[in-house]
Amino acid sequence: MASPLPSALRHLVQSFTRLPGVGEKTALRFALHLLADQRPVMEALSHALSEAAARLQPCESCGNIAEIAVSAGTPRTPSEGAAVCGICADSRRDRSQLCVVAKVQDLLAVERSGAMRGRYFVLGRLLSPLDGIGPEELPLAKLEQQIASQGVEELVIATPPSVEGEATALHLAREFGRRVRVTRIASGIPHGGDLEFADPITLGRAMAGRRGLEG
Amino acid sequence: MASPLPSALRHLVQSFTRLPGVGEKTALRFALHLLADQRPVMEALSHALSEAAARLQPCESCGNIAEIAVSAGTPRTPSEGAAVCGICADSRRDRSQLCVVAKVQDLLAVERSGAMRGRYFVLGRLLSPLDGIGPEELPLAKLEQQIASQGVEELVIATPPSVEGEATALHLAREFGRRVRVTRIASGIPHGGDLEFADPITLGRAMAGRRGLEG
Repeated sequence: MASPLPSALRHLVQSFTRLPGVGEKTALRFALHLLADQRPVMEALSHALSEAAARLQPCESCGNIAEIAVSAGTPRTPSEGAAVCGICADSRRDRSQLCVVAKVQDLLAVERSGAMRGRYFVLGRLLSPLDGIGPEELPLAKLEQQIASQGVEELVIATPPSVEGEATALHLAREFGRRVRVTRIASGIPHGGDLEFADPITLGRAMAGRRGLEG
Repeated sequence: MASPLPSALRHLVQSFTRLPGVGEKTALRFALHLLADQRPVMEALSHALSEAAARLQPCESCGNIAEIAVSAGTPRTPSEGAAVCGICADSRRDRSQLCVVAKVQDLLAVERSGAMRGRYFVLGRLLSPLDGIGPEELPLAKLEQQIASQGVEELVIATPPSVEGEATALHLAREFGRRVRVTRIASGIPHGGDLEFADPITLGRAMAGRRGLEG
């Protein structure tokens, strides 16, 4: 005798399950929470989603998220405004340094650290032969164009220290090492971390990456 | 030098944090996931939310979620269609039984069990003096009206076996016990549960609620 959910509720639950890590139960919890006294939130979220879909585009230079200006009354097309992110548009940024990251989340993390005064380049993916992602899947032509047009002197490779991240770093070093200085972020024991619980590879890297200490 | 997020992205992240259990990090993960190749999903979710806000209303009889018919070209107001849920509209339901639950999720759980052939009444809240929720905050007049108009003979109280749920059950029994038969769902060891790990209150209830076993 189980009665089905109303179709508008079913569609909402299905749409929520497309979010990462959200299953049927969580999606239903989201939907019922919004339906119980949260209608303004529901409409605000709907509006924020359609605004984001209309206004946010990948930055044409670096792949970061860029907001395009949308004027009222005109059709909202990507070609209407140039999609250039705040970092690429910032003239105070050091154009001689280009920090290569795997994804936008990593760019935001490096930004939060305040350790990068240059610009970024978001690869969008890492080399992964097992998943069929070879060098031709990387945006190398676009990266080359950025290096040439911006007068980049140092390519700081900030891909993660994983098998894929290291393979990608090595490939980029081979590809661009003759034209610019290519550096790689350090891998080792994190700040506040415990040597006792560090895995052997991390400890090995921390040892291999040791630096002279001046007293 | 940390650059702020574009405003459309910031609004989207803020809106996502209004969902239960979603913090800033998860909200940003949702937003960036949608922005990376998931634009159709983004628009579908936006549409599903605005449709749900327009079409879903609490059922006028029981408080379950009801879908109202919205005809194209006319304003979408709650008064346009009668908000009656599928269960209340189902003439095959036994009108002599009314199952009282705390929230819509509980109604759906009872429905899935297939153990209730009657109709429901969603309280929306439970008695909780500590939170300032007294009997006057419960929709007792509406419940009384349902009992009278539907010819209810048995009120099956399916509030949870918590302090608030029990207090509410007791209050409903006092309020309506003279007019209809009031029953309470059993509390005890769940199916497949282990006596060894059951808490003393649950075990006490299982003992107190024991029934004759015919061999």
